[in-house]
Amino acid sequence: MRFTSILSLILLSLIITSNYPVKKQELKLSDETQECINCHSVIHPGIVASWEKSRHSKITPEDAITKTKLERRVSFTTIEEKLKNVVVGCYECHSLNTEKHSDAFEHNGYKINLIISPNDCAVCHPTETNEYSKNLMSFAHSNLVENKVYQDLMRSVNNPHKYDKGKIEIKDSNKLTDYESCLYCHGSKIEVKGFENRETQFGELTFPVLEGWPNQGVGRINPDGSRGSCSACHTRHEFSIEIARKPYTCAECHKGPDVPAFKVYEVSKHGNIFSSEYHKYNFDQVPWRIGKDFSVPTCATCHISLITSPDGKEVIVERTHQMNDRLSWRLFGVPYAHPHPIKPNLSDVKNSAGLPLIVELNGEPVNKFVISREEQEKRNSLMKSICLNCHSKSWVNGHFERLENTIKETNALTLQATKILQEFWANGFTKGLPHNQSSFDEKIERDWVSTWLYYANSIRFASAMAGGGDYGVFADGRYQLTEKLYEMKEMLELRKKLKK
Amino acid sequence: MRFTSILSLILLSLIITSNYPVKKQELKLSDETQECINCHSVIHPGIVASWEKSRHSKITPEDAITKTKLERRVSFTTIEEKLKNVVVGCYECHSLNTEKHSDAFEHNGYKINLIISPNDCAVCHPTETNEYSKNLMSFAHSNLVENKVYQDLMRSVNNPHKYDKGKIEIKDSNKLTDYESCLYCHGSKIEVKGFENRETQFGELTFPVLEGWPNQGVGRINPDGSRGSCSACHTRHEFSIEIARKPYTCAECHKGPDVPAFKVYEVSKHGNIFSSEYHKYNFDQVPWRIGKDFSVPTCATCHISLITSPDGKEVIVERTHQMNDRLSWRLFGVPYAHPHPIKPNLSDVKNSAGLPLIVELNGEPVNKFVISREEQEKRNSLMKSICLNCHSKSWVNGHFERLENTIKETNALTLQATKILQEFWANGFTKGLPHNQSSFDEKIERDWVSTWLYYANSIRFASAMAGGGDYGVFADGRYQLTEKLYEMKEMLELRKKLKK
Amino acid sequence: MRFTSILSLILLSLIITSNYPVKKQELKLSDETQECINCHSVIHPGIVASWEKSRHSKITPEDAITKTKLERRVSFTTIEEKLKNVVVGCYECHSLNTEKHSDAFEHNGYKINLIISPNDCAVCHPTETNEYSKNLMSFAHSNLVENKVYQDLMRSVNNPHKYDKGKIEIKDSNKLTDYESCLYCHGSKIEVKGFENRETQFGELTFPVLEGWPNQGVGRINPDGSRGSCSACHTRHEFSIEIARKPYTCAECHKGPDVPAFKVYEVSKHGNIFSSEYHKYNFDQVPWRIGKDFSVPTCATCHISLITSPDGKEVIVERTHQMNDRLSWRLFGVPYAHPHPIKPNLSDVKNSAGLPLIVELNGEPVNKFVISREEQEKRNSLMKSICLNCHSKSWVNGHFERLENTIKETNALTLQATKILQEFWANGFTKGLPHNQSSFDEKIERDWVSTWLYYANSIRFASAMAGGGDYGVFADGRYQLTEKLYEMKEMLELRKKLKK
Repeated sequence: MRFTSILSLILLSLIITSNYPVKKQELKLSDETQECINCHSVIHPGIVASWEKSRHSKITPEDAITKTKLERRVSFTTIEEKLKNVVVGCYECHSLNTEKHSDAFEHNGYKINLIISPNDCAVCHPTETNEYSKNLMSFAHSNLVENKVYQDLMRSVNNPHKYDKGKIEIKDSNKLTDYESCLYCHGSKIEVKGFENRETQFGELTFPVLEGWPNQGVGRINPDGSRGSCSACHTRHEFSIEIARKPYTCAECHKGPDVPAFKVYEVSKHGNIFSSEYHKYNFDQVPWRIGKDFSVPTCATCHISLITSPDGKEVIVERTHQMNDRLSWRLFGVPYAHPHPIKPNLSDVKNSAGLPLIVELNGEPVNKFVISREEQEKRNSLMKSICLNCHSKSWVNGHFERLENTIKETNALTLQATKILQEFWANGFTKGLPHNQSSFDEKIERDWVSTWLYYANSIRFASAMAGGGDYGVFADGRYQLTEKLYEMKEMLELRKKLKK
Repeated sequence: MRFTSILSLILLSLIITSNYPVKKQELKLSDETQECINCHSVIHPGIVASWEKSRHSKITPEDAITKTKLERRVSFTTIEEKLKNVVVGCYECHSLNTEKHSDAFEHNGYKINLIISPNDCAVCHPTETNEYSKNLMSFAHSNLVENKVYQDLMRSVNNPHKYDKGKIEIKDSNKLTDYESCLYCHGSKIEVKGFENRETQFGELTFPVLEGWPNQGVGRINPDGSRGSCSACHTRHEFSIEIARKPYTCAECHKGPDVPAFKVYEVSKHGNIFSSEYHKYNFDQVPWRIGKDFSVPTCATCHISLITSPDGKEVIVERTHQMNDRLSWRLFGVPYAHPHPIKPNLSDVKNSAGLPLIVELNGEPVNKFVISREEQEKRNSLMKSICLNCHSKSWVNGHFERLENTIKETNALTLQATKILQEFWANGFTKGLPHNQSSFDEKIERDWVSTWLYYANSIRFASAMAGGGDYGVFADGRYQLTEKLYEMKEMLELRKKLKK
Repeated sequence: MRFTSILSLILLSLIITSNYPVKKQELKLSDETQECINCHSVIHPGIVASWEKSRHSKITPEDAITKTKLERRVSFTTIEEKLKNVVVGCYECHSLNTEKHSDAFEHNGYKINLIISPNDCAVCHPTETNEYSKNLMSFAHSNLVENKVYQDLMRSVNNPHKYDKGKIEIKDSNKLTDYESCLYCHGSKIEVKGFENRETQFGELTFPVLEGWPNQGVGRINPDGSRGSCSACHTRHEFSIEIARKPYTCAECHKGPDVPAFKVYEVSKHGNIFSSEYHKYNFDQVPWRIGKDFSVPTCATCHISLITSPDGKEVIVERTHQMNDRLSWRLFGVPYAHPHPIKPNLSDVKNSAGLPLIVELNGEPVNKFVISREEQEKRNSLMKSICLNCHSKSWVNGHFERLENTIKETNALTLQATKILQEFWANGFTKGLPHNQSSFDEKIERDWVSTWLYYANSIRFASAMAGGGDYGVFADGRYQLTEKLYEMKEMLELRKKLKK
């Protein structure tokens, strides 16, 4: 064979490589997973197809751990021998720790868990699981449903209401409603109620009967007792880092008027450029190289991902699944923004009025539950170290100065609303906190909630994410907050007039 | 020629094929269409360019009908000889059934229709036209403007208002306003008012003068008496199945607070993945292969398209343009959700109070107008057969159980609002239904409308589409619905106090 | 070397060209820019990487000006010799007109401006700068903060509020708040407060201390006295025409409820197709060819860009940065829509009541400040000449007829709200305009503002952009406007009753 022929063959292979899908390597499936796929590719073709697109289907843990430190996507030190040299298939995940899973069941001769918990993912990703457990998110279920103030709010929002003879009565809660409202994001508690036989196309089989299912909330209580759901962000069964890094994932729970992070992002300069260019970025690269793989940050860039210099060599910021390591403030979901809580589990917090809140009704934080000014500055510094790759120091400092000002100003505005509400309570125009009754089931109480849960939150997000104009002013912003103050004041005047 | 040369030529052709646009086949244009294009490519280059991108410009009906059953995009059995072997150009569509078209006019020696109606499209797509006519959508114009209750609502929303001496008077309707408000989606009635001569760059020409034009609403009444506008979804002149299958098309009319389907989709897991990955999907493939052409459903996937297994061989669900064959409930636009109506034409419905509604004011459906429980379950089964390709049975059943619960609960909440409104009416605080006056032109009446038209609708959509958190709670959801109840109750108290 | 070998080499080069990034041409960097990059690629890798993707980094002014008239992106006639033959790097922009820049500072031996102003961009783009200066946008800062009516509005929205003993007091303004609310879009006034030394990784350096920074608002007052910020739309440091042409850029400031242009676009037919297809369009082409580079218009298509026929030869509409040359009406931000102002600087406008507004309180425009009917028709004609490439004359005329109707109808609705508000003022129920007090700090006043700033604006945008249904009716549209009228009327009744 002569030179030109060889050259031609090289060319041919180049063409094939560049124009056709990459030739599939022989997948090292475990026998068990092969058996799963035999049936499930027929009855759940969508699940199997998703998994086939996943990295899990293409690499073994042994190969994954040999990547360089910066390229590595797993964090285990040791792993069971039988998992080492097969790709991560159905059986490899659904058969883990079955002894701890109350949802484990016999399935065609295997013990299988219906639900995968963070503890199962920890077999390959222990660092990420551990970090995640330090987030408020991992306690999103408990911090909501076990807190008396939020219980009161949930009850007034979700429970059946009955109007009769001038009164509205709030009835007992409805679990199905809770699951698809607050707990959709906060996570449900999944309990095994028993087992049932079901006729399938492969004969009669037994399955667990679950309460609180389906659910992928971030603070889900799993049948093995663990907290969280990795698939909340790492969407099953593709578990795509690309999807997790795009802001659409965060938007699932961070878009509403109570936490309009995605909306603010969309109208920010960052969001504008993202929407315009994201199909040209490389969202699958690890480490994630600034300027090379992406030009503007998404949520993940600033809060989670391992970011490096364009050449992939200098670490700008380490990967973390403990997102609060760069969060100095708790901005939303509370009557007043306050320094970030020290711990994710807020079951023991209490203010001077005995309420399970980290703030007093006058807006002061309860210091022993929140991080120090020093820790705040440390966290700000970490965040700023990301901003500074594309912005000058005066730009970045100007930005953070405004945020602190906005926190102060919005807290002060909410305080004025609190004072008006307290006059309602003091005059007995409305029954609430001082009367040991709900603080959320009268119009004036809801007006008060709007000032912080919607408007102050929006304003603070607009500030924190440089989303500027609209969400800071006219879209649930300062305009609405001040209007609500005027309305509350007028309602108070009216009540006083009617009393005379 | 030697081997290497041949190889090189093969390579060259490979490169050309893969790197350059596909070589255009000779288009079989009719002479008439060629004549249209001669002028219109100059005066309407955008229209001609769109059409050139369309499938219509690239295939003849004869070729289209010879595709395999699953690949076929046309449904005729016979077709006129002259249409068979030319591509579907300007003349082929705009010259159809001119005898039925009051908008037909002489144009350069040809009889041309300005508007294409579903009956014209039926020449090649009779099955789709026939199915579509069985949807509520095809009666969207008539069911709105010929219904006394909705007429009353339209009047209070669209008509000019005049304030004088403490009173608001509603004036006569303004057609131009109606066209660009309700009828934008519901469809206008297009009438030919006459013909006029216009000076054009090709000399003086005659054109029909149309009332209600432009319009592409789904229930448009066409100048040939037919109902609907295929271009509402199959955007002219590309008629792209890709566009119709993406949710942006449905969002044109299903995004507002009265029907936030797209908003809910966007924050659902399905919508998240769609936004992240849709540029990698194949939206042009027929049949549409689950897991292969797409990973998550769009509106079209569950409601309309022919879906098959990944290999394109097993039909999962048949194509339908009668979308209600998998809709068991009518969720929105009505005071109470109720089982789906039996017929699309609602001109004869009446409840026990004589109102043209399918529900009583207490929320009970009028049984003779709605489908049976049995039929509902049949339709649910069809829908579930799609879900089950990616979700387990317990997941899917859990989802549908919640939806039924939500329908019950939201109807019950609206009922409480109705009871308060009825006390307003009974006490004469507001004139409405019992006084034979508008039920929509007072604040308290609008509050009542909000409970169902906005909040209950949003909650039900969030439930139906697993869009969870925000639209079920804080974004026009349960929070707002209960707040509205508290407000209505308080307004009633106030009125009673003032009466004393 | 034989034929086949040569062929193979040609093939190889073809493959490389088509499959690998374009071979970088030798960049003709100035020595100064090279010096900037040496440090800043380390400390600001994101900025440098963005610039490397820009056209500025790839072409010299000399090459840019030799393009054909239609392909040209620069508009200078002469340029300094030293700028001619180097690409447009850091130093080329940041060293311009330093004598006029109060933010100029010594930096490693060079005189550098921190901020680039439109006057600096004018070195290569004088036509664009000159045109832009004729827009209302260039006076967005001054027309807001120097206008007494808008000052009053800003004060009631942004300033700290204090509630005490039944009264709300509005405190002095907070600059940091203003910067991130109204001025985020309108532009801040940037002032140099002095200079400071900062320790950097390259030793101690001096930097200017800026007030009002960061800011990229469209009417920014720059340290050289000029108005505007080109980077508001031409995002630094990529300055991508692609980004500027996509609607996400405009959405940064035109999405909120006061100006929902982007929201309306999204649900319009144009927006639907854009969302579906935009990744297939060519947004980088100059001139921009209708039907070839894009199928549907974005904001830029109708308002700014040079558009040609598909073959790139016939000019459909010239490029303009004076967007009002096709704007016949001022639709938003004012109590009543009115013909477009004659001049961008509105500092001398005054109505018959002495208010700095172009309209009377009864909705009549003050004729001497607005363009004539004739000029309006001229501007409409220019806009229609774009529409007509894809729509028939009857379609386009029908569209514009509806817009004029909608302007008339929404102005009339706002007038009814004004009449109710005036009764509040006349009866002394609320202090406002006639009492020389704020017109924006009572609930009823805000209700009035809602009728025009939110609802009438939304309705007009829905009409102007054929965005139809929702934003014209249920999404801050006619439904909300009429509801607000009912509410205002009822509040007036209540006040009258309480007075008795």
